[in-house]
Amino acid sequence: MPEREPYTIAWEEETGSIVYIDQTLLPGQYRVVRCTTVEDLARAIRRLEVRGAPALGIAGAMGVALAAVRSAEPDLDRFREGVGQAADLLRGTRPTAVNLAWGIDRVVRKVAMAASVAEAKALAIAEANAVAEEDELTCRRLGTFGEELFPARCTVLTHCNAGALACRCWGTALGVIRSAVAAGKDVRVIACETRPLNQGSRLTCWELARDGIDVTLIPDSSAAYLMRKGAIDLVIVGADRITKDAVFNKIGTYMHAVAARHHGIPFYVAAPVSTFDLARTEKEITVEERDRTELAYCGDRQLAPDGVAVLNYAFDATPLDLVDAIITEIGVLRPPYADSFRLVGKEEGI
Amino acid sequence: MPEREPYTIAWEEETGSIVYIDQTLLPGQYRVVRCTTVEDLARAIRRLEVRGAPALGIAGAMGVALAAVRSAEPDLDRFREGVGQAADLLRGTRPTAVNLAWGIDRVVRKVAMAASVAEAKALAIAEANAVAEEDELTCRRLGTFGEELFPARCTVLTHCNAGALACRCWGTALGVIRSAVAAGKDVRVIACETRPLNQGSRLTCWELARDGIDVTLIPDSSAAYLMRKGAIDLVIVGADRITKDAVFNKIGTYMHAVAARHHGIPFYVAAPVSTFDLARTEKEITVEERDRTELAYCGDRQLAPDGVAVLNYAFDATPLDLVDAIITEIGVLRPPYADSFRLVGKEEGI
Repeated sequence: MPEREPYTIAWEEETGSIVYIDQTLLPGQYRVVRCTTVEDLARAIRRLEVRGAPALGIAGAMGVALAAVRSAEPDLDRFREGVGQAADLLRGTRPTAVNLAWGIDRVVRKVAMAASVAEAKALAIAEANAVAEEDELTCRRLGTFGEELFPARCTVLTHCNAGALACRCWGTALGVIRSAVAAGKDVRVIACETRPLNQGSRLTCWELARDGIDVTLIPDSSAAYLMRKGAIDLVIVGADRITKDAVFNKIGTYMHAVAARHHGIPFYVAAPVSTFDLARTEKEITVEERDRTELAYCGDRQLAPDGVAVLNYAFDATPLDLVDAIITEIGVLRPPYADSFRLVGKEEGI
Repeated sequence: MPEREPYTIAWEEETGSIVYIDQTLLPGQYRVVRCTTVEDLARAIRRLEVRGAPALGIAGAMGVALAAVRSAEPDLDRFREGVGQAADLLRGTRPTAVNLAWGIDRVVRKVAMAASVAEAKALAIAEANAVAEEDELTCRRLGTFGEELFPARCTVLTHCNAGALACRCWGTALGVIRSAVAAGKDVRVIACETRPLNQGSRLTCWELARDGIDVTLIPDSSAAYLMRKGAIDLVIVGADRITKDAVFNKIGTYMHAVAARHHGIPFYVAAPVSTFDLARTEKEITVEERDRTELAYCGDRQLAPDGVAVLNYAFDATPLDLVDAIITEIGVLRPPYADSFRLVGKEEGI
């Protein structure tokens, strides 16, 4: 991993390990962790040390590769069985982001087609690295398509972190912002803190400030008021899963979409094709509910009394009729989505 | 102050002091503070140890009474001048809630009409206590009017704390909820945590749980999604100031009003007449901006990188066309407000 432009997650060839930036420690501490077991990776995903839909795709792929490379099993069938168990463990860590399963499946298919254990290991690593490299290309391509939607001078609201830290690098929503800045546009970013885990405060502010991009932090609840004051020109967010009728993304996304529509402000989603799950509808998707402690405490500080119930959805669903465009690496998709989704070619399921 | 039903803020006759519950320490610690100087009270208001529009009205009134009682000045003119300086100090602590100035002015007027220092002191205490006692009556009356708007069984969303802790006791928005429960209705409350200072998590959850009222905590950003899921029957909030065109209340209120309208859910404001400022319009009101540390830190925990700009409005303004009713102690006001505001009789200013 190069010192000056680190990847969020990468395969370390010399040690046969995964290395990733621990995102729970930012912005206070920047630490790269080396991970050598699938169990450790699963724990890291559950704890959100690695998070963000595209990064989870890479993590899933690399996790299966890790299981393959670290296996001492010489028998091909039993080897595949062990890799399959690792894949199941990883798949169960987070239910909503579709990229995780997509990344896992890509490597599992390579293992399945190998004629020997040695070939399976080589194919697994190659495929995991391909997933990561494609992600970078995807983000940059998506950024180029997306930045054309930005005026020459604009203030952009974003939610959560759909940035370099959510991908291999560059980012999806923040990738479009980076591409607009790179194209010479004057872009100011309003970052919503994104409760309860503050990915906006901790990650989006950190990576944009690091890149010298103008960023201002607000509480999630003031986005609509800033729209009312005419301070926001457009909204851009990432996605964890796009079904044929809705965009699943970090809790709060739907609220921004409703407010943007109320104020006549464009609402854009930036997401790679790997995020699409066009065989399913909103109702079929499980929205992850996370632990009450995320809302009842902040660090050691108790915010809510013991015993009070907490409803902590990690994601929400925004119906497509509130989405003005979906920016992908194959172009900008516009309503009617029933037509434009044909380009994605995933109606048969992933 | 009785042990079993403490008032949020009260005059302690024996010591000539103000006693109040320090709201910055809840829910971890319940502490009643005795305050003997206007400077200490001003600091407590700025630090939000005492907060909530009606409670600020009482605090303003009692603060002026404190200045009067504690004054050693025998000359009536110089005595009044000292009390006036104390009133100015208190008035400057928070710019948005109108009740603060209203409470201050009520006691200042009594001091102005007194014929001697001794009479001024007696009138000041009597008026401050009257402000507090009227607040309780107001909340209970407002609750009785408001609970008629609640169905027999309902889930109610509220924001911030417009409860017993924001008043002498009972509450405005939470007072209506208490009155509905007292009337035998089956009311469940969804409390928004209310970033950045978490008055929802810390105060609303604490006081409702203490009273055995069903309460569930959510992040502010999930309110709209719960509306989409059909989980919310109505929204009720308090107010810090009501101008002839808008309701000023805790940041996030406007977002809930927009979302409620989008989903066809009633949006109610509960506020005493002392909150109305019908001589002014939205544009004339200063919205308090608070320190960046409230968003950049949670306790000792750093949430945002150093140097990142923060926009931290304490309040927002909701235009009256998004408000389905305003519940007051003189009845429920309905659109068109140009007509129903005549009942309030404050077009000439406060």
